[in-house]
Amino acid sequence: MGNSFVIGIDIGGTNTVYGFIDHLGKIIEYNQIPTNGNLPAGDLIKRLEIYFKKFIKANPGYVLKGIGIGAPNGNHLTGVIENPPNLNWGNLDIQTEFRNIFLCEVILTNDANAAALGEKKYGVAKDMDDFIMITLGTGLGSGIFSGGKLIYGHDGLAGEMGHITIDINGRECNCGKNGCLESYVSAIGIRKTINQMIEKNPENKFLNSIKNGHLDGLKIDKAFDDNNQMAKSIYSFTGKMLGKGLALVATLFSPQAFIFYGGFSNAGDRIFSFANSEMEKNLLLSQKGKISLIKSALPKGRAGVLGASSLIKI
Amino acid sequence: MGNSFVIGIDIGGTNTVYGFIDHLGKIIEYNQIPTNGNLPAGDLIKRLEIYFKKFIKANPGYVLKGIGIGAPNGNHLTGVIENPPNLNWGNLDIQTEFRNIFLCEVILTNDANAAALGEKKYGVAKDMDDFIMITLGTGLGSGIFSGGKLIYGHDGLAGEMGHITIDINGRECNCGKNGCLESYVSAIGIRKTINQMIEKNPENKFLNSIKNGHLDGLKIDKAFDDNNQMAKSIYSFTGKMLGKGLALVATLFSPQAFIFYGGFSNAGDRIFSFANSEMEKNLLLSQKGKISLIKSALPKGRAGVLGASSLIKI
Repeated sequence: MGNSFVIGIDIGGTNTVYGFIDHLGKIIEYNQIPTNGNLPAGDLIKRLEIYFKKFIKANPGYVLKGIGIGAPNGNHLTGVIENPPNLNWGNLDIQTEFRNIFLCEVILTNDANAAALGEKKYGVAKDMDDFIMITLGTGLGSGIFSGGKLIYGHDGLAGEMGHITIDINGRECNCGKNGCLESYVSAIGIRKTINQMIEKNPENKFLNSIKNGHLDGLKIDKAFDDNNQMAKSIYSFTGKMLGKGLALVATLFSPQAFIFYGGFSNAGDRIFSFANSEMEKNLLLSQKGKISLIKSALPKGRAGVLGASSLIKI
Repeated sequence: MGNSFVIGIDIGGTNTVYGFIDHLGKIIEYNQIPTNGNLPAGDLIKRLEIYFKKFIKANPGYVLKGIGIGAPNGNHLTGVIENPPNLNWGNLDIQTEFRNIFLCEVILTNDANAAALGEKKYGVAKDMDDFIMITLGTGLGSGIFSGGKLIYGHDGLAGEMGHITIDINGRECNCGKNGCLESYVSAIGIRKTINQMIEKNPENKFLNSIKNGHLDGLKIDKAFDDNNQMAKSIYSFTGKMLGKGLALVATLFSPQAFIFYGGFSNAGDRIFSFANSEMEKNLLLSQKGKISLIKSALPKGRAGVLGASSLIKI
């Protein structure tokens, strides 16, 4: 409809991004604010309420059709953000909170599903019914499209690809299990890999230069391009473990493509070339050579907002 | 419609079962014939044609609405049975074959999917939208319902749970990969387990009594009930490997239940109790205690025929 709009919100561990999107999928306005996950959730909700009401007041010709939200541990079926990691919120019924304020439709999903929806509506997955979105950040998230629909499971908790077991005798994961994909392929996982490598190479200059503080992917990328053997080892090992995970998941879903978004996906072929050959090695004969690994082309930070907004039909 | 009927066919490695099913899902007539997979596929098709035409002639009041087929490696999207194991057929376009003979709708799916459809329409999964059917025979097959629909993937090859990797350093599977679930949990897998146990216990009477010939599940069941330690070891190991596989798949699909059908599922709790505790150990906290393991209650041999017939809307 002509002057309708929806709000898309992508809540992250550090920042929250929101946008006002018109019926053509155009972002009318877009903003990023700190999540402040150490404060009660009411703080973020209050700030968003003020921003949204300001936009509504300034644009009397536009009618708000609804609010779509992507958030870590956002449960589509209950509308509750359930004990999100790094956010001190416990269980937050964000659907009811926003419904009570704006008296409109409010739909929640998890952050990786929101990114997958964004890719499906506006990105490289436009013409795909079967693809898997992988978000590579602090952890590893996934949103799985199969037969044109997101996989939610009976309780909204499906699609936790970060926690499939790659090596039953593998390293401990933060979830308490052993050998989860996320414990190898994510900022957390690469940090663990670096620490293991330092134990064997305590004097290595490059490893010591990246062992503390924020894990800088660009620094590893540059060292990789300069043929640094440790950087090569980090990415080849990470890529191989990723490839094993991709093959396993492909055996169950047979997707056209895996699409990568966020943080370490910027390493691109430095990781994906290893991932692709390991995946091919571990696929059934009938599935070999048919699955693409693609880097998302959506602008940084937009996939989640666009995807979340697409939860609302306009 | 009143006097319509459909034909359901379940093609197996040894026997083929077919049934004539009315609009209420009642099996009017049911029969089992040898598949004769060593002969060209035309032999089986010719015999089925004769049986079907005989029924049609004897029941002039009934109108044939279509034929649904379940078969190993049956591809729903192409209508082709693709290089079925144990059947010397290569690629068989069975959909076209039957369409040309009976000029009606013909729909193919794989055998495990057909069993899942049978369970959904007539069995314990009637009220479930998210469940996974596991057929335990010579191999391990799976049919996956998610969000009320079977998972096919972009090429019809999804749902190969028998070939997810449980142990990257594990035993060789017939598919060429290592550590596949099927190489532990199936008649083939249990045979491998017995052979490994015999290496360590070459004189064991019970192991030697089951090491050759057809693998007799009832014999292992009985020894298990008699507290035979080797039988206990066989099922506890098999159950544990199954449990690891169930947890892995549940992490991706979050189903309400796993439903077991065929051959070794008759061992029941002798295997499932081990599988359940190992699954629970390997689930994410949010998924623990919510997933049931259920033995199919459909009559032996009927799940596939009923499921295949349900591919045709009547």
